[in-house]
Amino acid sequence: MNYTVEVKIMPLKDLLDPQGKAVMGGLSNLGLKGVADVRIGKNITMQVDADSADAARSVAEEAARKLLANPVMEQFEVTVQ
Amino acid sequence: MNYTVEVKIMPLKDLLDPQGKAVMGGLSNLGLKGVADVRIGKNITMQVDADSADAARSVAEEAARKLLANPVMEQFEVTVQ
Repeated sequence: MNYTVEVKIMPLKDLLDPQGKAVMGGLSNLGLKGVADVRIGKNITMQVDADSADAARSVAEEAARKLLANPVMEQFEVTVQ
Repeated sequence: MNYTVEVKIMPLKDLLDPQGKAVMGGLSNLGLKGVADVRIGKNITMQVDADSADAARSVAEEAARKLLANPVMEQFEVTVQ
């Protein structure tokens, strides 16, 4: 069966996110107030052909561990739809 | 009140996603089979200080429209948690 899998990759909570900080500055220059702690990560969707949702999840987790996420700086979260 | 808002930005469905295509090639080189249609977008979280969840959502939507997403190539989706 074909599963749609979403992998969300975000910078680790304890690390600074300079890209997010730059975006926060940009938002404040645009006059948007009240926005804080902007963090920018990746969102990856893929179609996985597998026997079960669990099998699809483990393929996606392996993909995230081996290629998509950098464990030194990022954490990931896999959702099977 | 303080709301956690998530903005998910993905390339439009009708457009090619060369970055996703490259990742798909990488996964196949790593021996991960059964993965297709990889699409790569951004996931942005922010803290929004607003009077209501609706107000927080409209701040985030304005941010996405004005700065975060490129409407020619991307679509966005806002979730208030």
